[in-house]
Amino acid sequence: MELALQLLGKRWTGLVIFQLLIGPQRFSEIEAALPVSGRLLTERLKELEKEGIVKRQLYPEVPVRVEYSLTEKGRALEPIFQDIQSWAENWISLDSGER
Amino acid sequence: MELALQLLGKRWTGLVIFQLLIGPQRFSEIEAALPVSGRLLTERLKELEKEGIVKRQLYPEVPVRVEYSLTEKGRALEPIFQDIQSWAENWISLDSGER
Repeated sequence: MELALQLLGKRWTGLVIFQLLIGPQRFSEIEAALPVSGRLLTERLKELEKEGIVKRQLYPEVPVRVEYSLTEKGRALEPIFQDIQSWAENWISLDSGER
Repeated sequence: MELALQLLGKRWTGLVIFQLLIGPQRFSEIEAALPVSGRLLTERLKELEKEGIVKRQLYPEVPVRVEYSLTEKGRALEPIFQDIQSWAENWISLDSGER
């Protein structure tokens, strides 16, 4: 439980998974979608691959195409993200409105 | 979204909320339930109070009794914890079994 929380709460990790829920993407597409540096994105993708949450697929074309996607374990995180999103919409925006 | 993820992923924060989902508790009860130092628990409870997730209630008895509980915003996190728990049960224990 604590491990899962720390994994998802690590800076950018959650957003990378959230972005990949859209579908398989190239590195450059993920990089363009998130305000994260290339170096840090590489690091996070490697960590997520190691955790079995993300898979890296290489297509031997010219030039080589590399796509990242979620594994079954990664896609199983979707309900968590939906809940976090609705919680944030209900509660975080309400708070800001009150200030 | 990212803010919510970082909040929950902060070391011990998630577990403190998870523990308070059981019901209102004194500091010493939370401390006994989690392997966290008193100093760090104080810090986390203050942060959660500031975020409007935890409330601190003082009962003017002798000796004074202080109880911590979740606010409505805090209780609204329950589905996220349920999902994280089932994800961890399904996927983290499976992984360990395979090693």
